[in-house]
Amino acid sequence: MNVVEGLNAVWVVLAAAMIVFMEGGFSLLEAGLVRTKNAVNVTMKIFVDLTFGALAYYAVGFGIMFGADHFGWLGWTAPSGVTGPEGVPAAAYVLFQIAFAMAVASIVSGAVAERMKFPAYIIATILVCGLVYPLSGHWIWSPDGWLSRLGMEDFAGSAAIHAMGGFAALALAAVLGPRHQRFGSAGEVNVFAPSNIPLASAGAFILWFGWFGFNAGSTLNVFDARLADIALHTFLAAAAGGAAAILFSMLRFGVSDPSMAINGSLAGLVAITAGCAYVGTDAAVLIGAVAGMLVVWATGWVDRMKVDDPVGAVAVHGFGGLWGTFAVGLFDVRQGLLTTGHAHLILVQGLGAFVVCLWGFVAMFAIGVLLNKIMGLRVSRDLEEQGLDLAFHGIPAYNELERFTNWQQKMELETRAVPGMASVPVTVKMDRPFPDPHAE
Amino acid sequence: MNVVEGLNAVWVVLAAAMIVFMEGGFSLLEAGLVRTKNAVNVTMKIFVDLTFGALAYYAVGFGIMFGADHFGWLGWTAPSGVTGPEGVPAAAYVLFQIAFAMAVASIVSGAVAERMKFPAYIIATILVCGLVYPLSGHWIWSPDGWLSRLGMEDFAGSAAIHAMGGFAALALAAVLGPRHQRFGSAGEVNVFAPSNIPLASAGAFILWFGWFGFNAGSTLNVFDARLADIALHTFLAAAAGGAAAILFSMLRFGVSDPSMAINGSLAGLVAITAGCAYVGTDAAVLIGAVAGMLVVWATGWVDRMKVDDPVGAVAVHGFGGLWGTFAVGLFDVRQGLLTTGHAHLILVQGLGAFVVCLWGFVAMFAIGVLLNKIMGLRVSRDLEEQGLDLAFHGIPAYNELERFTNWQQKMELETRAVPGMASVPVTVKMDRPFPDPHAE
Amino acid sequence: MNVVEGLNAVWVVLAAAMIVFMEGGFSLLEAGLVRTKNAVNVTMKIFVDLTFGALAYYAVGFGIMFGADHFGWLGWTAPSGVTGPEGVPAAAYVLFQIAFAMAVASIVSGAVAERMKFPAYIIATILVCGLVYPLSGHWIWSPDGWLSRLGMEDFAGSAAIHAMGGFAALALAAVLGPRHQRFGSAGEVNVFAPSNIPLASAGAFILWFGWFGFNAGSTLNVFDARLADIALHTFLAAAAGGAAAILFSMLRFGVSDPSMAINGSLAGLVAITAGCAYVGTDAAVLIGAVAGMLVVWATGWVDRMKVDDPVGAVAVHGFGGLWGTFAVGLFDVRQGLLTTGHAHLILVQGLGAFVVCLWGFVAMFAIGVLLNKIMGLRVSRDLEEQGLDLAFHGIPAYNELERFTNWQQKMELETRAVPGMASVPVTVKMDRPFPDPHAE
Repeated sequence: MNVVEGLNAVWVVLAAAMIVFMEGGFSLLEAGLVRTKNAVNVTMKIFVDLTFGALAYYAVGFGIMFGADHFGWLGWTAPSGVTGPEGVPAAAYVLFQIAFAMAVASIVSGAVAERMKFPAYIIATILVCGLVYPLSGHWIWSPDGWLSRLGMEDFAGSAAIHAMGGFAALALAAVLGPRHQRFGSAGEVNVFAPSNIPLASAGAFILWFGWFGFNAGSTLNVFDARLADIALHTFLAAAAGGAAAILFSMLRFGVSDPSMAINGSLAGLVAITAGCAYVGTDAAVLIGAVAGMLVVWATGWVDRMKVDDPVGAVAVHGFGGLWGTFAVGLFDVRQGLLTTGHAHLILVQGLGAFVVCLWGFVAMFAIGVLLNKIMGLRVSRDLEEQGLDLAFHGIPAYNELERFTNWQQKMELETRAVPGMASVPVTVKMDRPFPDPHAE
Repeated sequence: MNVVEGLNAVWVVLAAAMIVFMEGGFSLLEAGLVRTKNAVNVTMKIFVDLTFGALAYYAVGFGIMFGADHFGWLGWTAPSGVTGPEGVPAAAYVLFQIAFAMAVASIVSGAVAERMKFPAYIIATILVCGLVYPLSGHWIWSPDGWLSRLGMEDFAGSAAIHAMGGFAALALAAVLGPRHQRFGSAGEVNVFAPSNIPLASAGAFILWFGWFGFNAGSTLNVFDARLADIALHTFLAAAAGGAAAILFSMLRFGVSDPSMAINGSLAGLVAITAGCAYVGTDAAVLIGAVAGMLVVWATGWVDRMKVDDPVGAVAVHGFGGLWGTFAVGLFDVRQGLLTTGHAHLILVQGLGAFVVCLWGFVAMFAIGVLLNKIMGLRVSRDLEEQGLDLAFHGIPAYNELERFTNWQQKMELETRAVPGMASVPVTVKMDRPFPDPHAE
Repeated sequence: MNVVEGLNAVWVVLAAAMIVFMEGGFSLLEAGLVRTKNAVNVTMKIFVDLTFGALAYYAVGFGIMFGADHFGWLGWTAPSGVTGPEGVPAAAYVLFQIAFAMAVASIVSGAVAERMKFPAYIIATILVCGLVYPLSGHWIWSPDGWLSRLGMEDFAGSAAIHAMGGFAALALAAVLGPRHQRFGSAGEVNVFAPSNIPLASAGAFILWFGWFGFNAGSTLNVFDARLADIALHTFLAAAAGGAAAILFSMLRFGVSDPSMAINGSLAGLVAITAGCAYVGTDAAVLIGAVAGMLVVWATGWVDRMKVDDPVGAVAVHGFGGLWGTFAVGLFDVRQGLLTTGHAHLILVQGLGAFVVCLWGFVAMFAIGVLLNKIMGLRVSRDLEEQGLDLAFHGIPAYNELERFTNWQQKMELETRAVPGMASVPVTVKMDRPFPDPHAE
């Protein structure tokens, strides 16, 4: 056993585990930000990413992304023929790349929450992980990809993962249309209140933790001298993004909104993902801070486009990723416009970011229109009002009736009855796992 | 300091930390799957595993499991005389093994939820971690254990941890009897709805994350060439298990049930735990997929046996572990029946799995009967109806009254009163930490 | 690239990531222990620690703490001039130290929950991370600090982080005064029930996980021979602390209180933090067990002082840290009083613990009084009754109205109406992100 390969196996496996854990972060974040009646559905969509999405990428996507190149546009290798970069065991490399692919699907999942048919989401996820992401990923990250050959720098995927995923999310959300009453006929914008802020925050903390694996793990190499800088830059950009969003929201709205604190931090993480290995520490703070303010503006822009993104995925990942990709062209220590005066890199970064966002948008738009024709994308108005949880998953997120009952008992012991709850039965029995989906 | 030993210390400590964190996963999973009125109780039982269980294993169990062998059946070494395998610091090894032992107790804890006396659970956990698990663990994992000498392969414990724990759980659940109204007099099976799906999912994500430490960490060696394969196999089996369970539940029940997605993924993880270092990647996917379907069937089997397992621990860990142990005999790349045509290994695996399940069942059954005589295992019908949280822990999981109040205030500001809530006081005061357990 | 430096970079970055994740643990712990109406506010305060606190430490605090020494009392280095210890990349070292500094702020945040103005908390956090903690941290952890030169031993910060933070928390809680009705006019002590025990437990599990990074990571060196012992001691002290608190609470109060189980485990972790590298394994168990009992007593002591600490931060961190610092003087294997009969170390430990607690208390008291004069520390009685979430953050933690509605729909399908809920509208629309803070 090669010593370096052994050490890299441990490092890449640990980083991959942290990125896999980020799926839990996406799940809690989305379950906390959507309305309670769809909290099971968003959770189950993350399970789809972790299962169908991961298997699709393993079976097909990885080969397209990292297999032998054809014309700089796509590759192909069967899973059995995979090798990793020099010094990294193939299995560790594949695992790491699977974890990345799932993140793209999870970005999309948030923007289409609360109104998409579950079976259609499964198909869309398989296509995103097996085809859409691997193609543009090949352009950027395969050594022979055409953007890679132009010199595009996207260390851990502000463009390849986040901007692509964010604009794919925008397209699918646009095809689906907004939730009922989200945009009023008189032009007013209604925001449905998140259902569970502590849960959403827990998701954000998990994502922040996992991002150390996402960015520093992308060295794929224990002896990459930039490793510690990458981790510090990642953290500081998140801190600056969160601070900027909190301040901005206090100054503009008079309150420090938790969604903004969460999304500002996440936008800082997204934005530094491309440049964490290329920019200086001060630039990392600046990139994060700008991202934190950008996310507040972008949230408004998406609303003005009348596209309904329940969790802010487009603002955080799409715009954060776009800015982060571009910012490398400004702040790269060796060839950035502001740091060195060279203009080549920023043009490549701009081209790459534009192409990748366009690809994400167009490909996902086409998939959305196609799936809509074939199987229908959107649930009925009735079902949307009722929430997707009971119809698709047979169970609500929180079993409230039973909770009431506990307290009723408690209160009876205290001889303080709550009128109007007398008719609630003591135990709620559901005939799960054999529910009748037509009864809801 | 030996270089290899230093690297292994870091690796094993990190893996152990991830396995310790799995206790949090068990806690959230169980708190989400049981009814609200017992959510504190299941949480506290995990704290018992982390405290009394861990200390019992440290003080006694470790010596029985890994101490100097006697006749292939048990060992003994005092904690102070412990050494780890070549190249692993003793302290790292002990910590890792403690984390494993707690998992066994936590498997049992789920199956006996919602009806067991808390003090009896403490005693049972001490016996499981200090005696029951270490004995069969010695047979499999001590180099001199009789199953080990027969050539049984159980890399990270599908048999030693999961099958044993799952069948021990079956026994204690059988001794306890089902919860009131769980099985109707006319033969009907009632399933009580889980109380908090996002919480249960969070637990599943933590378990999935920790499993990388569980399986890849079992190399105990940074330079084990199989390390990255193990991690990839672990992930893919979970993905396949989840995908199979989701598909199966959609086809059979018309909905994709979140408990099935969770338990299917976990069953995939359980099943690959024995073979992750011995089978090929395709076999890992297959083992996981079968486990994901098996768990749906096994959940029904446990119900038909009229044993009440509130969280599906027997199906996931017992049957998943049994299948995973057996599957090594089918798919081992060097001596599997299907891969090489040799029959020796599969016979050993079958024998080992059978013996370990039998031991788990018989030992736990005996402990259950004994504890029932000595101190009583089961709470009264009244207490069961009321929930165990207030009686044993003096506090409900969620302070609902106070929540109502918040919204009442909010609604008053909006001049929309909710009738029937007027009598709810503004703050709920409890005289904790001095509650009177007799008042409930 | 130096091999050792590369390995240490990975180790310190992973440990730092785990410590950063502990902020999520603080957040969930506090959100679960306070009343629902302030759960968003405590969460947002953790975001303040992660953003403003981290940036203040990075920009100013680090230089004061580890920069070139002046008279043993303070240092100074600009962020750009930082170097780490031999063999550790500067960026990894800075990241690790930032993570430590945030923990101090988060300790304070718990004790001042439910009544402090949010803008004042931001300023206080900047001062704690930028000034208060770095100064006493310099005394203990800078090689030239005066306590360091006296020979004080505080491996990972029982004194520098926890005792200091705990007594700073005591001071700010004292300046703020207790929550309304917390202490009755007839001398009675009212404890407000925690709102969400599973959430608080999730926080505790994250903290326990992160503590492996906190203590073992403080080696800053993969080849520190004590690394595995540190991790084992850390775990066993937590287990012993939790076990002691559970037993003690069962014997004294008749119930095993979850807050006590949580805080007992955490106190064990706090107490072993100073000595994890210096004491034996048996001593680690003993130190943890004493801490677990101490926390129950200290909780009562704080109450008797009429200081209101909603989450027990003073008892856990202040008293646990004090005990842990002192215990090194008793049990240090080379110079402890009980282990070797030497009295020098215990005198130094006592002096150091006293000075650091005094500094934390006095500095924070002064900051509290000053901020109270300048901007006001405490919210109005009305706002306190209403909860801080709507006023400062524009949103409640849990969107209950909408939940009711789900169930109302569900119940109507089942033709079982709940009287008194008929007037609840189907969707709750809030005009976020443009709320009017004056409307609440």
